[in-house]
Amino acid sequence: MPADINDDASGIKGEMEREIVLGRNIHTDCWEVKEPDADDEVTGERKASMASVLAPYRRTLIERTKNHLGYPINLDFEYGALAQFQHFSINNLGDPFIDESNYGVHSREFEVGVLDWFARLWELEKNEYWGYITNCGTEGNLHGILVGREVYPDGILYASRESHYSVFKAARMYRMECEKVDALAPKVTFKKPIGSVSVSGHKFVGCPMPCGVQITRLEHINALSRNVEYLASRDATMMGSRNGHAPIFLWYTLNKKGYRWFQKEVQKCLQNAHYLKDRLRDAGIGAMLNELSSTVVLERPLDEEFIRKWQLACQGNIAHVVVMPNVTVEKLDKFLNELITRRATWYGDDGKHQSPCVASNIGKENCLCFLHK
Amino acid sequence: MPADINDDASGIKGEMEREIVLGRNIHTDCWEVKEPDADDEVTGERKASMASVLAPYRRTLIERTKNHLGYPINLDFEYGALAQFQHFSINNLGDPFIDESNYGVHSREFEVGVLDWFARLWELEKNEYWGYITNCGTEGNLHGILVGREVYPDGILYASRESHYSVFKAARMYRMECEKVDALAPKVTFKKPIGSVSVSGHKFVGCPMPCGVQITRLEHINALSRNVEYLASRDATMMGSRNGHAPIFLWYTLNKKGYRWFQKEVQKCLQNAHYLKDRLRDAGIGAMLNELSSTVVLERPLDEEFIRKWQLACQGNIAHVVVMPNVTVEKLDKFLNELITRRATWYGDDGKHQSPCVASNIGKENCLCFLHK
Repeated sequence: MPADINDDASGIKGEMEREIVLGRNIHTDCWEVKEPDADDEVTGERKASMASVLAPYRRTLIERTKNHLGYPINLDFEYGALAQFQHFSINNLGDPFIDESNYGVHSREFEVGVLDWFARLWELEKNEYWGYITNCGTEGNLHGILVGREVYPDGILYASRESHYSVFKAARMYRMECEKVDALAPKVTFKKPIGSVSVSGHKFVGCPMPCGVQITRLEHINALSRNVEYLASRDATMMGSRNGHAPIFLWYTLNKKGYRWFQKEVQKCLQNAHYLKDRLRDAGIGAMLNELSSTVVLERPLDEEFIRKWQLACQGNIAHVVVMPNVTVEKLDKFLNELITRRATWYGDDGKHQSPCVASNIGKENCLCFLHK
Repeated sequence: MPADINDDASGIKGEMEREIVLGRNIHTDCWEVKEPDADDEVTGERKASMASVLAPYRRTLIERTKNHLGYPINLDFEYGALAQFQHFSINNLGDPFIDESNYGVHSREFEVGVLDWFARLWELEKNEYWGYITNCGTEGNLHGILVGREVYPDGILYASRESHYSVFKAARMYRMECEKVDALAPKVTFKKPIGSVSVSGHKFVGCPMPCGVQITRLEHINALSRNVEYLASRDATMMGSRNGHAPIFLWYTLNKKGYRWFQKEVQKCLQNAHYLKDRLRDAGIGAMLNELSSTVVLERPLDEEFIRKWQLACQGNIAHVVVMPNVTVEKLDKFLNELITRRATWYGDDGKHQSPCVASNIGKENCLCFLHK
């Protein structure tokens, strides 16, 4: 029971076991909305008080963006050319392929351009796919599973046990039987008998707001849109109003960078992930990196402040660093040097504290705790 | 059968009866994503070609924003002070009240400020509510109904027949029995035995991207989040990644304008809606306006180009103008003058064409067709 060994050896539990008390809001700090005084417009006090919130908030965002390492979100983007569109309420109401709504302030032409690009990437012909740009990967998962259920109303949902948690949430939402199966790490292509693919747009591509791309076989989509009497349109998206800015961001990046750029970036991320894993192990820190992955798994740093600073995703004894395109060797060096220095104070020579055993998480061969090194 | 009378009298069917062919994508024009050439970075050609798409698109957005009348979307906002945040990937992962994720580039403090404001508006105490900022009104409806189903697993969903279509979509998604009942037009307050409220943020408040506010009684939310083993957190939002920009936009408007401003704007909208209805009827055009509503219902204009220009929401024989804060008397005058002029050409003195009868839609007393005037 390595977790117990760790607890016994270090005597440290602390925040690792903090408990979520359900049914109670942990009412975090908030920026209260205050009713303006009648003369605020004249005195300019309101404007000044709002600026006094926004300016430090911006500095916080800069600092946090600089140090971020733990989530698969690419923070390296430059959308200055698109600032001109923030003034518009861009809304791609309903189906991207059926222009039933007369609302004109949309970006459907960009959306369909992006969808075509992904359909081509995943080897599905233009006239054989349907899709839309979602608000996030979860929306795509919820959509794809709903389409599946409508095509096979009594079907059982088989999902890899490594699936994103939203897949199991969907089974519960839709009252479907669900069975977990072992994972595969496959190439995504519609040449295989798959029904739909959902991918996040704000992760590897990078986008100021969460978004995703959902592509499904056209033949399946009608199962979702039987009740057309009210709408005189097929109602095939999860949401009615849809963010019209996200398609423009994605279109801009795909056009600017292109497929070859993404290939190069993937290579760079894999190399940098290897660099991180090697340097961690050289420093006596257990770490694991799967083939074709850019996520390095390591022991959970002892200090919560350090975890928060670097925004590491943690689970039990382990932490993740996701090497995205914005994570350079320089940033990794800074992280490594700080971790190594801090670790010397956490697990000093006095023998009182030991680094955690992570053999049960990442395998004995990757663990460098006092039992396995 | 007034619809038949109209068809017989005018002999015009045209696009009023255009049919949606399900199962076929109407592949609209799109801005194709093109792979950059290797030397595009050097020659600047790529940059120029993208600018040649974006510049006319911006002009289109300006034009369409200027003429928009048909949807309940307030296009009158000024968020210049927030342009500084477009560079950040702001993501309010998960529950706004439980800071389980370590991702630091979020705007939870703004989100909770906005939620507190709406909870106060709807008369629910801080420690008795839970909520979050959604991607649109539909997401809120899907969420509220799911909470309801989890609290009453065998419950029947009773919904007003005037409900937004997403309510009936939810019943189908969640495999719930659903019964339509007659509508009420009530004050929204948690002093009544209601479980949750969903409202759009991009409509009356105004926001560049669709968003919404969802408030529910805290006591109900745990029914939604039983499966906590994986997350070590309650998974109570529909989506995982959540747009962190929308809360800042809402916070900014609420702070800048305040409750009293919204009250004044509502009064102005109601007055302008009355002005529109009166001027339509003075011009011999049937029109209806319900009490406490700012949506004027009128005959569907004959010309599809006119409908598209003014972006009117149409259904059968009728069209809607929604008088939002950005719809001024000047804009209404421009619309009215153009409608009256065009109408003279559609329904001239030759007796061949008659304006449509809308008695079955808006009542005989509001119709001014040749039978009812």
